[in-house]
Amino acid sequence: MHTLQEYFSKWVPEIDRHLEREIRSLNTVVAPLARHVVLSGGKRLRPILCMLTSKALGYKEEKALPLACALELVHSATLLHDDVLDGAELRRSKTAAHLQFGTTQTILAGDALLALANKIVTSFENVSLISCLSETIYQTATGEILEIEKMKDTSLTQEEYLEIIIGKTGYLMQTCCQSSAILAASSQELEVAAQKFGLNLGIAFQLIDDAMDYTKTEDLTGKPLGGDLREGKLTLPLIFFLQSLKQDVQLEVLSKIKDKTLPQEEENWIIGEINNRRFSQKTKQEAMYYLEKSSDALTLFPSYQAIGLLKQLLEFIKDRDN
Amino acid sequence: MHTLQEYFSKWVPEIDRHLEREIRSLNTVVAPLARHVVLSGGKRLRPILCMLTSKALGYKEEKALPLACALELVHSATLLHDDVLDGAELRRSKTAAHLQFGTTQTILAGDALLALANKIVTSFENVSLISCLSETIYQTATGEILEIEKMKDTSLTQEEYLEIIIGKTGYLMQTCCQSSAILAASSQELEVAAQKFGLNLGIAFQLIDDAMDYTKTEDLTGKPLGGDLREGKLTLPLIFFLQSLKQDVQLEVLSKIKDKTLPQEEENWIIGEINNRRFSQKTKQEAMYYLEKSSDALTLFPSYQAIGLLKQLLEFIKDRDN
Repeated sequence: MHTLQEYFSKWVPEIDRHLEREIRSLNTVVAPLARHVVLSGGKRLRPILCMLTSKALGYKEEKALPLACALELVHSATLLHDDVLDGAELRRSKTAAHLQFGTTQTILAGDALLALANKIVTSFENVSLISCLSETIYQTATGEILEIEKMKDTSLTQEEYLEIIIGKTGYLMQTCCQSSAILAASSQELEVAAQKFGLNLGIAFQLIDDAMDYTKTEDLTGKPLGGDLREGKLTLPLIFFLQSLKQDVQLEVLSKIKDKTLPQEEENWIIGEINNRRFSQKTKQEAMYYLEKSSDALTLFPSYQAIGLLKQLLEFIKDRDN
Repeated sequence: MHTLQEYFSKWVPEIDRHLEREIRSLNTVVAPLARHVVLSGGKRLRPILCMLTSKALGYKEEKALPLACALELVHSATLLHDDVLDGAELRRSKTAAHLQFGTTQTILAGDALLALANKIVTSFENVSLISCLSETIYQTATGEILEIEKMKDTSLTQEEYLEIIIGKTGYLMQTCCQSSAILAASSQELEVAAQKFGLNLGIAFQLIDDAMDYTKTEDLTGKPLGGDLREGKLTLPLIFFLQSLKQDVQLEVLSKIKDKTLPQEEENWIIGEINNRRFSQKTKQEAMYYLEKSSDALTLFPSYQAIGLLKQLLEFIKDRDN
């Protein structure tokens, strides 16, 4: 198996089958909701990352499959809670769960998925692994609260933005790689390298996602163009744009964004400016820096073949269109 | 130490101090919310239950303290999520967290507390113990979804009601006792007895709580009288009342309860009837049955002194006024 495409083709159906089995084990009141979010055609980036890292560390990826799926369940749970929090209407081109199933059920299904992920990871009977997962769930929840608190500030610096995306995306990606190292009983040095690889990849992934929110239409992303702007989310392309304005204009625009009172024409103007003045491009440039840091961490990994695939994964993230 | 009162007096301050320490370890964005719900004067029934059961099984209760506190954190997390779900305005006589801190922050703080509980339990490095906690969190979330689903039915039987309260209260109480048995490395037979003790105590506790909702005023419970009725919750006193009505009246009243369109005078009438016709008393009678089952499970426990205290705990639950 030489291409990442072949790797995805081989493993994504296995991951989906395993996830389907796990969901079937859920109580019938939770299963439809879980199925709605888990089996709605995600890229399976996190489980693939976990399995490929396992392979790169010389550990049989088949044995990491349940772990990989547990991490996808954690991701799905955060999507469920996020959708409620965001008031999002679409997720992966489908109606957001809370609109279809009710807010209450969605919150509780998120709780149930987190608990299921804990149960699966516990079955490995490896305390370090369980500990790693608990820490991730804790950090991710805290990261999201931090995001909300920071968003109340009248402005947001690039550093604060970075802290937020580490919390909401970076940490879980780091865990996908670190947990593989724990499972593979890798050396401390390799475990740190795996963490570094995953964290920087996660940051880059989120930066590109935030850039794409301003450049790609709903057909490609499954989310409406400029959705972050409408939700009042200060992501890096918007921070660059705001920084380019005179202070009085900046404050005026910012307050409309926060209050969600931005008229349609100003919204279009901002999206246009972010594209024309290449602020989305500049955000992607930032992502390149983290992709390089991620790539550097691979040098210690023992399996050359899998390193090749992980490098292709970094390329895939760099070039992705959806 | 011969009385339960002395036991509470000795250990509740220790539990509170330990909880305060755990909360201080939380991120500053989560800590105030966690403090609001955790340190607002709960009875600490769950941690006391855990510690007393440990003692009754011949295990040093001091060593069970972090476990006991983790279980209180799970309970607090469910209170946070429940308050959001119920739209409750008061909790332990204080403004409900979601009204003071915002719904989003409250949901996420609940997630963070569940994760913290997992982290604490993981630190015992006992896979069975971790597994027991994951299962509880899963069952409790599922139980609450089940409650919502069942509540949509036009009627609810006593059996279905029992299933619901096992999910929302019984299971966690069971875990308080079972986890002590796991920590104490008790025999399989004793672990089953501990489960039985906790589960039946939990069912009785909830039955009495549901009865009190119709009999005790806000001063005593910290919750408004007949709150369950107004929230459209079909608990046992109300089920008894509904069963006493002619079918056409029953359906009419039920639909108003469900739609929350019950006029004030009908609300007062129902609360009056439940008291006058002793449906709340009948609910307490049901609780006595489970308290006896709980008491029966104690016969196998090795420590006579602690058994005495656990029997006082059953009396306390039977007679509690708040």
